[in-house]
Amino acid sequence: MFDEHENGYFTEETSAEVVAARNAKAEDERLRDCVNILVKHIHAAIKEMEPSQEEWFKTIMFLTETGHTCDDWRQEFILLSDIMGVSMLVDAINNRKPSGASESTVLGPFHVAEAPELPMGSNICLDGKGEPMLVRGRILDTDGTPVADAKIDVWQANDEGFYDVQQKGIQPDFNLRGVFRTGPDGTYSFRAVKPKFYPIPDDGPVGKLLRSLGRHPYRPAHFHYILEADGFESLTTHIFDPDDPYINSDAVFGVKESLMAKFDLIEDRAAQQEAGFDEAFYLVEHDFVLAKG
Amino acid sequence: MFDEHENGYFTEETSAEVVAARNAKAEDERLRDCVNILVKHIHAAIKEMEPSQEEWFKTIMFLTETGHTCDDWRQEFILLSDIMGVSMLVDAINNRKPSGASESTVLGPFHVAEAPELPMGSNICLDGKGEPMLVRGRILDTDGTPVADAKIDVWQANDEGFYDVQQKGIQPDFNLRGVFRTGPDGTYSFRAVKPKFYPIPDDGPVGKLLRSLGRHPYRPAHFHYILEADGFESLTTHIFDPDDPYINSDAVFGVKESLMAKFDLIEDRAAQQEAGFDEAFYLVEHDFVLAKG
Repeated sequence: MFDEHENGYFTEETSAEVVAARNAKAEDERLRDCVNILVKHIHAAIKEMEPSQEEWFKTIMFLTETGHTCDDWRQEFILLSDIMGVSMLVDAINNRKPSGASESTVLGPFHVAEAPELPMGSNICLDGKGEPMLVRGRILDTDGTPVADAKIDVWQANDEGFYDVQQKGIQPDFNLRGVFRTGPDGTYSFRAVKPKFYPIPDDGPVGKLLRSLGRHPYRPAHFHYILEADGFESLTTHIFDPDDPYINSDAVFGVKESLMAKFDLIEDRAAQQEAGFDEAFYLVEHDFVLAKG
Repeated sequence: MFDEHENGYFTEETSAEVVAARNAKAEDERLRDCVNILVKHIHAAIKEMEPSQEEWFKTIMFLTETGHTCDDWRQEFILLSDIMGVSMLVDAINNRKPSGASESTVLGPFHVAEAPELPMGSNICLDGKGEPMLVRGRILDTDGTPVADAKIDVWQANDEGFYDVQQKGIQPDFNLRGVFRTGPDGTYSFRAVKPKFYPIPDDGPVGKLLRSLGRHPYRPAHFHYILEADGFESLTTHIFDPDDPYINSDAVFGVKESLMAKFDLIEDRAAQQEAGFDEAFYLVEHDFVLAKG
């Protein structure tokens, strides 16, 4: 009738084992294993920290405030996971790529599923702000063979550091978003605007924590890609501006050495005309290598 | 101007060290140390669990729902801390008592600061429900000397398993609460009602998690004490009914062997009269030993 399973008494020494024994009857073995792993490591953290009752209550209140900051438009727990490096760690574990394949990084909260499919070379900058940029390169497999019919979904913040979905009614819809498809030669190209660094939302408890830790909320300038092609693992990644002031201190730890692009300022008039610009522009040439699926 | 501190790139292997290096400039060293300890152990847990992106998102949504369940009257993160054994671990770390002193357990959410001070022997049961109980004993120091002028703050749930503050307007105010003060002989006594087991609030995400783990939400029958006396460490504890069906599976892990009381059913008429009852009653005799402060 009742659970009279004898687990032994709870002590500092046995705490995690006593809790795990109590979870022994869970039908979902994966849930049970994950909870027991978390209990083991969190108990180890508590034993190392030795928080006072007041410190532990402050932690409870921080989590509560973080929950209260979440709504349909704001996910403060994802921000917390991001600034603690947990989101990047989960990304790394789920995207171990074979040697030679391009590396992944975090998706971020600003992807939009229904961005328009555009002809190669289109300019996705619809608000006319910022320094023009031409991005081009090839999608290859790990043998160096071009990948035809690869779908390239790109998005980025505007010259003021905001995504269109953060400024609905201010920026044009689908500003700086587009989907492209490679032909038989595997090449891609599109025009956009040189990205700028921007802060993660920092007016909530996570922003306050960052300040208490002596950290800034900025992500270095980047643009986002999701690459998909039949027979290949999909790749969610960024490429970064290596000259960005925050390139070594991304608030969410998204930077990897292999994700650095090169931004060349092109001042030659003929090259500007050929690229469809009437002023100096930045040229970013970057190839991606997809892992076979 | 900018943080250009070079921390090395984030990888599965270096993840926790890279995050800790980023926190190096925190002015609050205790905060920095605690965050870095948590990061180290949570990253270790993630590496052991290897959650899918979907599993991690489910975890984020569980925390979000837990936050949304918290309000002025409900603290779902404390419940989560309780059922994971974390509250008891923090209690144990903060209440290491010398040999021979009575042990502590969790405060719980139902203590009220302004309970009335009553004469020794008073009956704190104001709703007339349940089986009568007389509790008595001595407050001693670790040498066995009675402690005079010790303040004893007691509270418990009623015969239906609810504290007065959970049933405002249904139970009389301060039902089953009282504060007593020992005389020179260190003895205490009060009349109340035999406690019953009761569930922690289980209509939120923590209750759902308990069910998914094959666990019940019950706490075995107990009553609460806070004992305070000049020159001694204060003691927050329970005493438990060893015959309770949930005595080996307290949902919040509060039970310790030394906290078992003995409930003797007294049917002798003269003893009933002496205790101030006109029916059979339970006698609980329990001494407490305070650690010198």
